[in-house]
Amino acid sequence: MHPIKKWHELIETGNKEIYDEILADDVVFYSPVVHTPQKGKEITKIYLSAAGNVFGDSKKESAPKDSFSNFKYTKEIIGENNACLEFENTINGIHLNGVDLITWNEDNLITEFRVLVRPLQAINMLHKMMGEMLEKMNNQ
Amino acid sequence: MHPIKKWHELIETGNKEIYDEILADDVVFYSPVVHTPQKGKEITKIYLSAAGNVFGDSKKESAPKDSFSNFKYTKEIIGENNACLEFENTINGIHLNGVDLITWNEDNLITEFRVLVRPLQAINMLHKMMGEMLEKMNNQ
Repeated sequence: MHPIKKWHELIETGNKEIYDEILADDVVFYSPVVHTPQKGKEITKIYLSAAGNVFGDSKKESAPKDSFSNFKYTKEIIGENNACLEFENTINGIHLNGVDLITWNEDNLITEFRVLVRPLQAINMLHKMMGEMLEKMNNQ
Repeated sequence: MHPIKKWHELIETGNKEIYDEILADDVVFYSPVVHTPQKGKEITKIYLSAAGNVFGDSKKESAPKDSFSNFKYTKEIIGENNACLEFENTINGIHLNGVDLITWNEDNLITEFRVLVRPLQAINMLHKMMGEMLEKMNNQ
């Protein structure tokens, strides 16, 4: 199955087992906030799960209540081995516009996952929320 | 000519007259820093010119000296009427990774130009430099 189709399945169902099916072992995650690339499947799963909880891609109680309703992908540009998915969301009344920039290998496994977010106000909020979410997940 | 080919010509030559050939009158510019969309050809030209000066797409003296050398597009995903161009740069020793998300109409004129930048440190720097550049341009 096309990795982007699979990715949408993950977002829609919140089924985090799909990470294991779509991420390459040597996948690298590039955060919108931090410069240092996060290398490997485990750390990438943690960051994507935390982002998912913050954005409310699943119905987990850990997600902030008002983040559920309005995360949506607004644009999709698909290349041969990469894709650019644009999204919009409103969290705590702050509008957030971002891009998932995804590259996969010949086995249809994701090797690179970059997230970029605008505007500055949304990144500052995301920075704070991601920090809190990662700490919360770490304590569970 | 394909709008992205034309865009690359602008970047490579620094010929800002090309803006008039590729931007629709009702183009909207979405800054990486500010939420409010900037509507119209004139304001979009100003923002893209300022960004060009900061990033050093032209050899103008107004561009910071160390920003010239290493701006480069690193990925390009082209859709039917939109494209995602990823770029990298280092300014003042700070690494900057971004995306131009460009949409055009049936006349091949750009109707939407979004710029997203990561990581946070780079956006903060860009925020400051864009402010200074817009003021400088305003005083010329």
